[in-house]
Amino acid sequence: MDMGLQKQKGVALWRQISDRIRANIAAGLYDASGKLPAEKLLAEEFSVNRHTVRAALAALAEEGIVRAVQGVGTIIERRDKFDFPIALRTRLTEGIGAQAREVEGLLLASAVEAASSETARRLGLEPGAEVIRLDGIRKADGRPVSRSTMWFPADRFAGIDRAFAQTGSITQALAACGIDDYLRDLTEISATHAEPDDVVELRLTPGAIVLVTRAVNTDLQGRPIQYAMTRFPADRVQFTVRS
Amino acid sequence: MDMGLQKQKGVALWRQISDRIRANIAAGLYDASGKLPAEKLLAEEFSVNRHTVRAALAALAEEGIVRAVQGVGTIIERRDKFDFPIALRTRLTEGIGAQAREVEGLLLASAVEAASSETARRLGLEPGAEVIRLDGIRKADGRPVSRSTMWFPADRFAGIDRAFAQTGSITQALAACGIDDYLRDLTEISATHAEPDDVVELRLTPGAIVLVTRAVNTDLQGRPIQYAMTRFPADRVQFTVRS
Repeated sequence: MDMGLQKQKGVALWRQISDRIRANIAAGLYDASGKLPAEKLLAEEFSVNRHTVRAALAALAEEGIVRAVQGVGTIIERRDKFDFPIALRTRLTEGIGAQAREVEGLLLASAVEAASSETARRLGLEPGAEVIRLDGIRKADGRPVSRSTMWFPADRFAGIDRAFAQTGSITQALAACGIDDYLRDLTEISATHAEPDDVVELRLTPGAIVLVTRAVNTDLQGRPIQYAMTRFPADRVQFTVRS
Repeated sequence: MDMGLQKQKGVALWRQISDRIRANIAAGLYDASGKLPAEKLLAEEFSVNRHTVRAALAALAEEGIVRAVQGVGTIIERRDKFDFPIALRTRLTEGIGAQAREVEGLLLASAVEAASSETARRLGLEPGAEVIRLDGIRKADGRPVSRSTMWFPADRFAGIDRAFAQTGSITQALAACGIDDYLRDLTEISATHAEPDDVVELRLTPGAIVLVTRAVNTDLQGRPIQYAMTRFPADRVQFTVRS
């Protein structure tokens, strides 16, 4: 089978092959068997030697996508992406609730700072106004699925850092600050290459792709209460928008 | 300034630098001057030699992101992404209308084929039912901004291929088949590395990222009329979801 692999300048052959196999897994190509073809067959398929195939499989194993099992072959550990719904009442933790046994939010850092012009614009504040910044990470079944930097107007949300650290949930942290309900106003979605911090915090391999959202939540009166930039590993996450 | 560049296995240094500069441009880092720092400064910033910087800049020039201007330096040609709104009444061509002087849709290929199980499921058809497939590309001001494969139930949409070829607009092609209004039911959004066909059709460099949407449109009675997979160059396009 011709897999259409063509030499890409500046990208090692083993990485091109791991990218291709990752895409094949996501597309369900190996769903029938639940495992990859033998190394020898993969080597023939991509017209490379087995050493190159092994390097590609090692990278995929490191990502937790495949696992070599003695006497069985290279089984596919994970083929489904977490599906994050984006809607008026977007609650990310609840949104993937049914897809994972355990979802946890961890506070990495917090600070009170002057709003950048961008953050001020999004929150409807004067530039330089005080905002509380939270840096957090979300895990589903122990695997990182997103990392966020969030800003809240400091005057309305004193103590939200402790509330988030204790509950691991933005919805509950907002409730602790008197916000019982809120709405997703705007979500911008883009994609880029993983930064060094993504590689560490999201446990990615260098060269991986991250989906990036910039989102504003408002209270029921339409006042912005939260601006968040969130980065998701593209091989583990997709978004669904329903009208 | 420490840009946090760390060696990435399997990705050439010039590519890591072009990725980083591309991200910096998107983040507005050079907005004040409208041009990149001098080669010498970039080489110091990334701790590489000028030959490597030149290779990175050549790749960005090839993508149309920067341009070397004699006596001025490396100016930024394009910093803004096209913003595609995703909403109940998503009309992609209209959605970016104000952001481009000219938007055109081109039919690359069309066929009548048996629906795959996936396409049948999305369109609410029996697997194997006849569908019309259109392969198209959309350009804004002459630059490719998306490539789509679209499927329509064959019994309701005879002639949609010619209508699309003539008008360059799915909205107008659907109107020619009696659909005056339609709704976006579902949009799934993911991201992946460019395939060889993306590199050719979307004029990308290998290693680039594409945003992928899978979307279903229905008529006003809620019957699916179109299933489309669309691939967008992530460095030229972002999506916005408003609630």
